[in-house]
Amino acid sequence: MEDKTIEITELAQMVDGEVIGDGSLTIRGFAPLDTAGPGEISFLVKAKSAELLEDSAAAAFLVGREFEASGWTLIRVDNPYLAAAIIQNYFLAEPFVAQGIHKTAVVGPDCTIDEQISIAPLVVIGARVRIGARVRIDGGAVIGDDVSIGEDCWIKANVSIEHGCELGARVIIHPGTVIGSDGYGYATDKLGCHVKRPQLGIVRIDDDVEIGANSTVDRATFGVTWIKAGTKIDNLVQVAHNVVVGENSLLVAQVGISGSTILGRNVVFGGQAGAAGHQTIGDRTMVAGKSAVHGDVGPDSRLSGVPAIDGQRWFKAATLFGKLPELARDLRRMKKELARLTASDQAGSDKV
Amino acid sequence: MEDKTIEITELAQMVDGEVIGDGSLTIRGFAPLDTAGPGEISFLVKAKSAELLEDSAAAAFLVGREFEASGWTLIRVDNPYLAAAIIQNYFLAEPFVAQGIHKTAVVGPDCTIDEQISIAPLVVIGARVRIGARVRIDGGAVIGDDVSIGEDCWIKANVSIEHGCELGARVIIHPGTVIGSDGYGYATDKLGCHVKRPQLGIVRIDDDVEIGANSTVDRATFGVTWIKAGTKIDNLVQVAHNVVVGENSLLVAQVGISGSTILGRNVVFGGQAGAAGHQTIGDRTMVAGKSAVHGDVGPDSRLSGVPAIDGQRWFKAATLFGKLPELARDLRRMKKELARLTASDQAGSDKV
Amino acid sequence: MEDKTIEITELAQMVDGEVIGDGSLTIRGFAPLDTAGPGEISFLVKAKSAELLEDSAAAAFLVGREFEASGWTLIRVDNPYLAAAIIQNYFLAEPFVAQGIHKTAVVGPDCTIDEQISIAPLVVIGARVRIGARVRIDGGAVIGDDVSIGEDCWIKANVSIEHGCELGARVIIHPGTVIGSDGYGYATDKLGCHVKRPQLGIVRIDDDVEIGANSTVDRATFGVTWIKAGTKIDNLVQVAHNVVVGENSLLVAQVGISGSTILGRNVVFGGQAGAAGHQTIGDRTMVAGKSAVHGDVGPDSRLSGVPAIDGQRWFKAATLFGKLPELARDLRRMKKELARLTASDQAGSDKV
Repeated sequence: MEDKTIEITELAQMVDGEVIGDGSLTIRGFAPLDTAGPGEISFLVKAKSAELLEDSAAAAFLVGREFEASGWTLIRVDNPYLAAAIIQNYFLAEPFVAQGIHKTAVVGPDCTIDEQISIAPLVVIGARVRIGARVRIDGGAVIGDDVSIGEDCWIKANVSIEHGCELGARVIIHPGTVIGSDGYGYATDKLGCHVKRPQLGIVRIDDDVEIGANSTVDRATFGVTWIKAGTKIDNLVQVAHNVVVGENSLLVAQVGISGSTILGRNVVFGGQAGAAGHQTIGDRTMVAGKSAVHGDVGPDSRLSGVPAIDGQRWFKAATLFGKLPELARDLRRMKKELARLTASDQAGSDKV
Repeated sequence: MEDKTIEITELAQMVDGEVIGDGSLTIRGFAPLDTAGPGEISFLVKAKSAELLEDSAAAAFLVGREFEASGWTLIRVDNPYLAAAIIQNYFLAEPFVAQGIHKTAVVGPDCTIDEQISIAPLVVIGARVRIGARVRIDGGAVIGDDVSIGEDCWIKANVSIEHGCELGARVIIHPGTVIGSDGYGYATDKLGCHVKRPQLGIVRIDDDVEIGANSTVDRATFGVTWIKAGTKIDNLVQVAHNVVVGENSLLVAQVGISGSTILGRNVVFGGQAGAAGHQTIGDRTMVAGKSAVHGDVGPDSRLSGVPAIDGQRWFKAATLFGKLPELARDLRRMKKELARLTASDQAGSDKV
Repeated sequence: MEDKTIEITELAQMVDGEVIGDGSLTIRGFAPLDTAGPGEISFLVKAKSAELLEDSAAAAFLVGREFEASGWTLIRVDNPYLAAAIIQNYFLAEPFVAQGIHKTAVVGPDCTIDEQISIAPLVVIGARVRIGARVRIDGGAVIGDDVSIGEDCWIKANVSIEHGCELGARVIIHPGTVIGSDGYGYATDKLGCHVKRPQLGIVRIDDDVEIGANSTVDRATFGVTWIKAGTKIDNLVQVAHNVVVGENSLLVAQVGISGSTILGRNVVFGGQAGAAGHQTIGDRTMVAGKSAVHGDVGPDSRLSGVPAIDGQRWFKAATLFGKLPELARDLRRMKKELARLTASDQAGSDKV
C-alpha cells in the first residue's frame, strides 16, 4: 500500500477539525483504539474522559468538540464517528489498477467497455452492455444484455444483473444479489390459475448506491424500479417492482418493500421491517425493525408495530402487552366487585 | 419482433369479450394508458368513467362489463386485468430460438438434452441430467447430477439445482434461487452437539410453477418436498424440507414455510409471513403478511397475527393494541373509584 | 455404494443401545418405517406401542428405553432419533474420492491446495488460498484471495467466500450463501449522506459448522465475525458484522442477528426471529420464531414476542390479545355502570 504519511493539521482540515496538542505530528494510518500503534490516529465516539486513551498506543485521537484532556494530541470534530470514516477512507484509498478482462470471461457482441477495467474469471457479459471506467466485476457475476454500468462501480461475486438495467457511478453490489428479476405480478382467472403479467420495465440504480449480499430488486412491470442516489441497502432485502427508494435512504437487512411503494429521501427501515404495496412514505421517516407499514405516511414520522403506529405510542402499548394477564385479572375482579356493588346499590334503593 | 397485427374481434374472442365500437379495427400491440400509441390496446382496471381515456392515445381499451362510454372502441370483459395479461402475452410471445449449448458450458456424462435448447455460457450441468425441448438455462446456473427439467423451462442466472430434483414443464426459476439444498435436520446428543440427519429426498416442482430470485427450497429428508402445479413463489422465500405447497398457491416475498407443513391449493401467504412445522393449511386459506400460523387451519380461512387468528378479530384487536395506554389508564382510575365506592358501600352498610 | 452389512450387536454398541430379540441379525442399511425392507433397520421416535411396527418390513427397530413389544428385534436407546441419525450416517458414509481440480476451474497464484480434493467446473479460486484435504467445492463457487478452508469442508454451488475468511474443518456451506460480504456500516454527515466505513475484518467459521442456502455472514468492521464450532445455520439467515455465535447454536431460517451481538453456546433462534445490535444473549437461551430480542439476556431464558419477553408470559398475553375487543367492551360497560353507581352513591350521600 502507498505511503500516505500526512501532517495532522492536514487531516484536521479534511474533517473540519481543530488540532489540540502537537500540530507537527505526522500520521500514517487509522486504527481502532485497541490495535492502533505509533503514527496512527484513532477515535473516541462517545467517551467524554481520557480514560480509554490510557491503554491506546495511538499517536492522536479524533474526539468530540467538548472533549477535554491534556497530554494527548487530539483533533476535535463535531462527529468523531464521521471523521473517522473520512480519514480511514483517505488512508485506504488506492488508485484503480486495471486487470483487463480475464480470458475465461465471456463477453457478448457489441459491448462498449472502457479499457480501465477489471473483469474477473468466469464472468458472463451479455450483448450491447456498456461499462464505464474503473469498474470491477468479480468472479461468477452475470450481466444481462443491454445493461449499463457507470464509472467506478464494483459488482461482486455471483451477482446477477438482468437485461436492460442501469447503474450509475460508484455503485457497489455485494455477492449473490439479483437486480432486475421479474416483478411478482399475476392476473388470476376464474379457476384460480395465475396468468403471468409480463414484466417489461427495468431497474435503475443511481450514483453511490450500495446493495448488500443476496438482496433482490425486481424490475418494473412497466417503467422503472428506482433506487435513488446515496441509498444503502443491507443483505437479504427485497425491493419489489415499481418501488422508488428516495435518496440516502437505509434499508436494513431482511426488509421487504412491496410493489409500487414510494419512499422519500433519508427514509430508514429497520431490520425485518416491511411496507405494503402502493404506499407513499415521507422523507426522513423511520420505521422500527420488525414493523409493517400500511397506509401512506407523512415525513419525519417514527413508526413501530404491525400495523405500524406512532413509535412512542407503540412503545407504551408494547410494554402493557406483557401486562395483559394482570390487566385482564384486574378487570375480572372489578367486574365481580362492580356486580356486588350494583346489587348492593339496588338493594339500598329497594330499601329506600 | 414478429408483426402480430390482429383484428380486434379476434382479440375479443381470446378474452371472452364484447367489442363496442369499431369492430374492423386492427391492433398491433398492448401498452399501459400513458404510453400506448396508435394501433395499441390498453386497459382500465377499476375506473368506471371515460375520464382516463381522454389522455390516452390508445386505439382501443379493455374495460369492465359495466363500463359505459361513447366515442371509444372498447372490449368489455369480466376482468380487464386478466384480459390485459392474456392479450399482452399474446403480443409478446415469440417462437423459441435454440442457441444450442455454449462452448464454455460444462456438461457431464450421460445427459439427455433436447436439441432445441439454449444453454448459456459458463453453465455447469452434472451427470445424467435430462433436459426437455425449448429449455433455456442462463449464465452461471449449476444443475446437479440426475436432475430432470421438463419442456419450456427457463432457469435463470446463477440458479443452483441440486442433484436429483425434478422440474415439470414451463417452470421459471429466477436468478440466485436454490432448489434442493439439504433440509435443516439434526439430532442433538446429551452434550448439546447436533448430529446431521442425512437429507435423502428431492424437490419436485410441477408444471407452470414460477419461483422468484434468491429463494430456497430444501430437499426432503426422505421422499419429496413438493411444489404443485401453477404455484407462484416470490423472492427470498424459504420452503423447508418435506413441505407440500398445493396447486396455484402464492407465497409472497420473504415467506417461510417450516418443515413438513402441507398447504392446500390456492393458499396465499402475504409477505414475511410464516408457518410452523408439521401443520396442515386448508385450500384457499389466506394468511396476512407478517403473520405466523401455528396449528392446523381449515379451508377458506383468513388469518392474521402472531400467532395467527381470525383476520377480522385480529384487525379489531390490533386497533385496540394502540389504545392500551388509555385502556390501562381507565382501568387504574376505575379501580380507584371502585375502591372508594366499596369503602362507601361498606360504610353505608355499617351505618345501616 | 460399499456393502456395510453389520451385526446388530455392533450397531447397538455405536448408539449405547441394548438389543432385544435376535442378536445374530445382520443389518445392511437404514430406512424409514414405510420404506424399510428386509435387512434394514428403522426407528420409532415417540410411539410406545408396537402398532406402527406391524406394517413395516424392517428387520429391526430403534426404540426408546421404555418400549415393550415381543416378536420384534429391537435396539433400545435413550434417544431413538439421535441413534437413527448416527446409524444412518454410518451406512451412508463413503470414502472421499478426489476428483482433482477441473480444467475449467480458475485457480490464482500462490495457493496451497491439498492433492486429495475435488474442485468442480467453473469454480474461481483467488490468490494465496489454502485448502485442506478432502475438501469439495461445487460448480460456480467463488473463493476470494487469502481464504483458508480446513479439511473435509464442502462448499456448494455458487457460494461466494470473500477475501481473507477462515473456515475450520468439516464446514458445510450450501448453495448461494455469501461469507464475508461487507458489514453494513456508515457514518452520516450533516446533509444526510452516508459515508462508508471500511470493513476490514474477516469471518471466522469454526469446525463442524453448517450454513444453509442463500444465507449471508458479513465480515467484521475490525476483527472477526465469528461462528463457533458445531453451530448450524439454516437458509436465508443474516449474520451481521462482528457478531459472535457461540458453539452448537441453531439459527433457523430467515433469522437476522444485528451487528456486534454476542450469542452464547447452544442458543436457539426460531425462524424469522431477530436480535438487535450490541446485545449479549446467554447460553442455551431459546428465542421463539418471529420474536425480536432487545437488551441483554441471561442464560437459559425462553423468550417470545416483539420486543421479546418471557415466553410463558408472552403466551398468556398473546392469547388475551385476541380477546382485546371483549376486554375493551367490558371496560366500557363497567365505566358506564361505575359512573351510574358513583352518581347513586353521591345522591345517597347527599340524601344522608
